Amino acid sequence: MTNLFDTICAPATPVGTGAISLIRVSGPDTMAAVDRVVRFKRSTASQAPGYTLKYGTVEGLDDVLVALFRAPNSYTGEDAAEISCHASPFIVSTLLERLADAGCRLAEPGEFTRRAFLNGKMDLAQAEAVADVIASSSSAQHRVAMSQLRGGYSAELRALRKQLLELSALLELELDFSEEEVEFAERSRLRALLDTACSHCRQLADSFRLGNAIRNGVPVAIVGAPNSGKSTLLNALLQDDRAIVSDIPGTTRDTVEETCVIGGVLFRFIDTAGIRSASDEIERLGIERTFRKISEADIVLGVIDTASDSSREAVGRTVRDMAERIDFRQQKLLVLANKCDISRLNKKVTECDRFVLSFDNKSITIPVLEISAKTGSGLEKLRSALISAVGNRAFEGTLVTNARHATALREASASLSAVSDGLDRGLPTDLLAEDLRAATASIGTITGEITSDEVLGEIFSRFCIGK
Amino acid sequence: MTNLFDTICAPATPVGTGAISLIRVSGPDTMAAVDRVVRFKRSTASQAPGYTLKYGTVEGLDDVLVALFRAPNSYTGEDAAEISCHASPFIVSTLLERLADAGCRLAEPGEFTRRAFLNGKMDLAQAEAVADVIASSSSAQHRVAMSQLRGGYSAELRALRKQLLELSALLELELDFSEEEVEFAERSRLRALLDTACSHCRQLADSFRLGNAIRNGVPVAIVGAPNSGKSTLLNALLQDDRAIVSDIPGTTRDTVEETCVIGGVLFRFIDTAGIRSASDEIERLGIERTFRKISEADIVLGVIDTASDSSREAVGRTVRDMAERIDFRQQKLLVLANKCDISRLNKKVTECDRFVLSFDNKSITIPVLEISAKTGSGLEKLRSALISAVGNRAFEGTLVTNARHATALREASASLSAVSDGLDRGLPTDLLAEDLRAATASIGTITGEITSDEVLGEIFSRFCIGK
Repeated sequence: MTNLFDTICAPATPVGTGAISLIRVSGPDTMAAVDRVVRFKRSTASQAPGYTLKYGTVEGLDDVLVALFRAPNSYTGEDAAEISCHASPFIVSTLLERLADAGCRLAEPGEFTRRAFLNGKMDLAQAEAVADVIASSSSAQHRVAMSQLRGGYSAELRALRKQLLELSALLELELDFSEEEVEFAERSRLRALLDTACSHCRQLADSFRLGNAIRNGVPVAIVGAPNSGKSTLLNALLQDDRAIVSDIPGTTRDTVEETCVIGGVLFRFIDTAGIRSASDEIERLGIERTFRKISEADIVLGVIDTASDSSREAVGRTVRDMAERIDFRQQKLLVLANKCDISRLNKKVTECDRFVLSFDNKSITIPVLEISAKTGSGLEKLRSALISAVGNRAFEGTLVTNARHATALREASASLSAVSDGLDRGLPTDLLAEDLRAATASIGTITGEITSDEVLGEIFSRFCIGK
Repeated sequence: MTNLFDTICAPATPVGTGAISLIRVSGPDTMAAVDRVVRFKRSTASQAPGYTLKYGTVEGLDDVLVALFRAPNSYTGEDAAEISCHASPFIVSTLLERLADAGCRLAEPGEFTRRAFLNGKMDLAQAEAVADVIASSSSAQHRVAMSQLRGGYSAELRALRKQLLELSALLELELDFSEEEVEFAERSRLRALLDTACSHCRQLADSFRLGNAIRNGVPVAIVGAPNSGKSTLLNALLQDDRAIVSDIPGTTRDTVEETCVIGGVLFRFIDTAGIRSASDEIERLGIERTFRKISEADIVLGVIDTASDSSREAVGRTVRDMAERIDFRQQKLLVLANKCDISRLNKKVTECDRFVLSFDNKSITIPVLEISAKTGSGLEKLRSALISAVGNRAFEGTLVTNARHATALREASASLSAVSDGLDRGLPTDLLAEDLRAATASIGTITGEITSDEVLGEIFSRFCIGK
């Protein structure tokens, strides 16, 4: 599909207000093409070794700096060049035309990274991480994407795949010696390896919930009665963030009103309609929607209006209403006693800093924070609480952030369960081997050890031109 | 004002969809700052010679390519570095923070180019051309800006200034030997030099009309009766241009509906209300506005509806009405016999391809083109005519494109006229010398041989950060 004999070129920097634009060239004829387009004072690009920086002239157009790289020591693993010119759309397009005249063709989206993959400079998971690194807007996103790019995740997957290949070898052994006494001992070892691999796959697949949250923003639902101060709280949290972002020079971003970075983690705040005992059908619909949003959240902030809720009993009821909707295995509830500056509550209600509720004979502790969204009091504590609600889980191991990988891992885990079931039910070894091969193949698709042009096309078409 | 002891940093590429971002560092502590932020495998930046390309790691953030330059062989003339990282706003802002921690401060707008000027890498006219080169969107704009950047214009101004200094020396001679017979011979030489210099200044100042047109688009007014096909013509001209522009990958531009590039020249088309004998006051106002637009144009396209104008006489009257508003010394009129596909005119009307009108006993030839804006017939000829209408004048010499320079040249020319007048009126030599110094100073401000922090501040504040 991809013709590696072509030499490709594309702008690598966006067009906009800037000083410098960069054009990338990669492929076997890079040096010859550069020499046809750029005139250098002394030696030519073709004579230059890798990692050379040369100043040259593009006739009648611009003076340029050219960085030259020699295969395999370049991003793509091929001969490559990066031409810096003045950041003018006219210059960039004329330079691309001249490169076309010199035999280069315009790169397809993601083609540089695709070549890096095809030339063995990175595996598929790392190539996908490149796009994530570029899209990162918080340090947590960045850390996860960068660790994937650096290859720790790939190494873990390769180790997993090696285990599965070992398992296959054990099964082959059984196929050969199925009548002998070696079977029983090997079978228990097989079982142990299988359980480890299966739980590893499931654990990685499960990490996608958090990985995805970190990549796209940890979903936080803000619930509470109307006028309990939900929007004021949201604004208070966003306001500070905006101020910080606008300090960064040269960055403009399409502001999604409801996301902000706190302590290096991207949060996605979801404002909801209030929860009350529904009296009519229309209100019930609104509340249903709120419940759905709550179920999608990782963290639920339950806002209580302490200026109108006047007793510990009333507050207790509200908290219980909220808590009934929470899946405490996957979600966290944080109760915010808002309007603490004008609270009518007896101090005792919140001074314990937590509610202890019991569900199904289990007692659940729900932390309470006194805040005033209006004055800003307690917001720092809230931010810390949000960070630690994520942080406690965030870095206990590898996080899967890519839906394609999560699907592959779930498939692998299902195949391994099928092997396990088959073992229990005494299925023939060759059937087991087939499921095992399916699991190995699923893992192989993540790093690209097993792949198709179709999958590659789908992955790289989402990249921008020049990457 | 500008502290050259600081080391400055800024992003040099815009933030947007791209693969690579570039951060510029310049100043005496560049290498030390780079070494604090980037870890290299082998030698440090501080040990590196100029024109070195190094691959390094920014801890926990990214892998980067660093181009290192040594004073004076860099853009600014100082030690400098260009760090390429992944094009992520998060990475860029974090890298800038780390550079700040390492002692760099964020560059002010245009500060890199300002330093290049202060360090003698370019004069002020060349520095201003940098911004024009970046803003160029047509090859004519680009050619003018590039020739200014390459310094031909500056050399011409320096020669002019040298002439004026020579004149001053001649005047000084007169001051010393005013009673002797040498005076008369020298005075005629003085007069000759003065006239040359004065007309040179005036010619350069006058070139601003065309220079400005090339920079901001050659103004073309489209006039004609309502329904003569002005808008169809405009759309037909723009349509093709848009298609060409969208072929250029990676470029997006804020489309100004009425400009388009034809044959490498940017044209600015101005659609006007029709010209007719005004019957009431309101219509007269609209026509006044049309006349104003006509007076601002370099080229006037007079559109005639040959499907309704039925005789050579009627057409002749319309053309005469248009021609009366044209200043033929500075403007060109091109008559377009539109709707040629459904023309009711006798062929003879337009077959001569020109009208010859006489004004004030001078005969003026006005070219006529048969077109159909609807079918596209004749549009290629129109484009050629537009290009040659500009081209004939465009490259006969230096073009001034900068309003500041045009003002300085006009001031110089006025001062030189004053010297000339003074000579005629026999004014004392020391008064003449003062006007001559004023003219020399005016020319000196263009290339920055004479300048102030205030002027520099004004010029460079219009640059973007990173340039």
